[in-house]
Amino acid sequence: MPSFKIAVLKGDGIGPEIVQSALQVLEKVGELFGYSFTFEEGLIGGVAIDQKGDPLPQETLELCLKSDAVLLGAVGGPKWDDLPTHKRPEKGLLGIRKALDLYANLRPAKVYEPLISSSPLKDDIVRGTDFIVVRELTGDVYYGEPRGVFRENGKRVGINTMRYTEDEIRRVVRKSFEIARGREKKLTSVDKSNVLEVSALWREIVQEESKNFPDVEVEHLYVDNCAMQIVRRPSSFDVIVTGNIFGDILSDEAAVITGSLGMLPSASIGDKHALYEPVHGSAPDIAGKGIANPIATILSASMMLRYSFGLTQVADTIEKAVEIALQRGYRTPDIYTEGTKKVGTKEMTEAIISAL
Amino acid sequence: MPSFKIAVLKGDGIGPEIVQSALQVLEKVGELFGYSFTFEEGLIGGVAIDQKGDPLPQETLELCLKSDAVLLGAVGGPKWDDLPTHKRPEKGLLGIRKALDLYANLRPAKVYEPLISSSPLKDDIVRGTDFIVVRELTGDVYYGEPRGVFRENGKRVGINTMRYTEDEIRRVVRKSFEIARGREKKLTSVDKSNVLEVSALWREIVQEESKNFPDVEVEHLYVDNCAMQIVRRPSSFDVIVTGNIFGDILSDEAAVITGSLGMLPSASIGDKHALYEPVHGSAPDIAGKGIANPIATILSASMMLRYSFGLTQVADTIEKAVEIALQRGYRTPDIYTEGTKKVGTKEMTEAIISAL
Ligand SMILES: CC(C)[C@H](C(=O)O)[C@@H](O)C(=O)O
Ligand SMILES: CC(C)[C@H](C(=O)O)[C@@H](O)C(=O)O
Repeated sequence: MPSFKIAVLKGDGIGPEIVQSALQVLEKVGELFGYSFTFEEGLIGGVAIDQKGDPLPQETLELCLKSDAVLLGAVGGPKWDDLPTHKRPEKGLLGIRKALDLYANLRPAKVYEPLISSSPLKDDIVRGTDFIVVRELTGDVYYGEPRGVFRENGKRVGINTMRYTEDEIRRVVRKSFEIARGREKKLTSVDKSNVLEVSALWREIVQEESKNFPDVEVEHLYVDNCAMQIVRRPSSFDVIVTGNIFGDILSDEAAVITGSLGMLPSASIGDKHALYEPVHGSAPDIAGKGIANPIATILSASMMLRYSFGLTQVADTIEKAVEIALQRGYRTPDIYTEGTKKVGTKEMTEAIISAL
Repeated sequence: MPSFKIAVLKGDGIGPEIVQSALQVLEKVGELFGYSFTFEEGLIGGVAIDQKGDPLPQETLELCLKSDAVLLGAVGGPKWDDLPTHKRPEKGLLGIRKALDLYANLRPAKVYEPLISSSPLKDDIVRGTDFIVVRELTGDVYYGEPRGVFRENGKRVGINTMRYTEDEIRRVVRKSFEIARGREKKLTSVDKSNVLEVSALWREIVQEESKNFPDVEVEHLYVDNCAMQIVRRPSSFDVIVTGNIFGDILSDEAAVITGSLGMLPSASIGDKHALYEPVHGSAPDIAGKGIANPIATILSASMMLRYSFGLTQVADTIEKAVEIALQRGYRTPDIYTEGTKKVGTKEMTEAIISAL
């Protein structure tokens, strides 16, 4: 029986609850399809700070490095909000991305027809929206040096550095072309090349690489314009590729227009490792109440089966089961509308498992 | 008769047509209310590159420095798109902002009830939206050094620098508190302080300044979250303050949800000078066709009367006239919907003038 070793990092807030749901689904599909998954837990984020004094303890990193894939819940919360930037729970997230070299963050933005009324956009604008934002995840102003708050003539000065090498740009751009090739063959590259040199380099590399993908149509948008077009014509996009900070903003904007943040999974992929996590945060306000929506984490586990283990059919089955549970009217509070069945995390998980 | 000297920079694309409309409106209100405006033209952007080899010729700068205010159309276009970053039409815009020290860019995002159906957002989400984004305009990664594309071990590396001094942050934050004080007394400060030190400094200054404005309620949002909330709960904002690059993205996102980019004016304000321009770009695709919407530029002229010359009543009159023209059904193609009168730039301008 094929066996996969998964590092499980539950993290903070609702992290533990929603990861638990995803593990149940994995166990069930393991039984049904004849795979075995072993789960080993590690600490990350706030809980790791509390227990180990470090948002990304060395043993967690080692666990991830020797696992076949990583499943993460969520990190952060008000409890750790006053810590300085370099000691925060988020530092664990940034550390693991870098250590595993997870340079491509795949963020699908897909509208589910039964949930279309929860989208803040007019139905006829958002209908049919189905694109992926590929966000570069290991470079840019997130990691650039020099950085810090310094003194100049007695005054504070804050500095961070946007920085990309051509190789860093090229690998994520290539990955995006490949993804576009497997979809509608349209790639939108987003930059601020009318102002930033780092963006001018980005655009140059995209133009160079597009010669290797003549079947993929390329569009260049400035980041401010893209922020507008995501709201204006979301269904026209197929794959959007951009740098780390622009991608942070645009992928969240893309997520919210679907009307169902609680539904959206993500994959962070490198050449050797991969990490899967829901798009939404740790939602400390509803942690422990048993009402968190587990679907984004379950779909993240499904992305893991698809991208890391090549188990396409099993992944399809999970995605289908989620749709069936929705069609049967099950809704956690975040996606509840009148006339549907309001359920908690546990019931939603059971509804999905019984639809498998 | 009080007299005001206005520097007029028509720029590229539809710039000349829409500025012409605004000048007509200014002349008319001058007649009606007993003010005289003198207009002196200067070159900026692509047209300045073509005629002077410089997107911001010295004589334009001198003209602006000795004028009471600057009215600008729009700059840029495909003709100049292949020039390197430091020679582009946009460099004129960046140069003038810096030279006149226009550190606060005011970008109202207001939904006009007669145009609500053009908003991409559902009516009940966008209704009542009326906020201002205050974008810092003379610092951040737009101007930070070092910048450029360098070689490292034979490979290209792109670098830009995010940089803010505490004084740069403080003056725009103060301006925002003052603006909020004159409105609903709610200030949302946007940063990425969970990752960036420059943002951590930003947040610190906002917290320091908030002690001087105890009557103003302060909210802090991360930029990715704010990009979501602008789409989700736009009517909850009053004043949003943020840095240059985040403001570039968020103010455009805020503009597009109103459904009427062609309606939105902006003011860029410093302690000594001010510049007014429409939010939309130079729209080269429709330049010279006589169909551009002049309203954003006319409202920019109105902001000039209000903020630079203190002519509140005259500004109110112009804004009222725009609303009347809309109520009478006049629409340029960009805001046209069935059952209204589709008109060109000239007729729209006349409709507004006759409503004065
Ligand atoms: C928590 C934060 C550091 C993180 C980021 O900015 O990358 C988050 O916003 C995300 O998008 O995963
Ligand atoms: C044209 C460009 C340099 C400019 C900017 O990014 O500031 C524009 O997008 C704006 O917002 O005025």
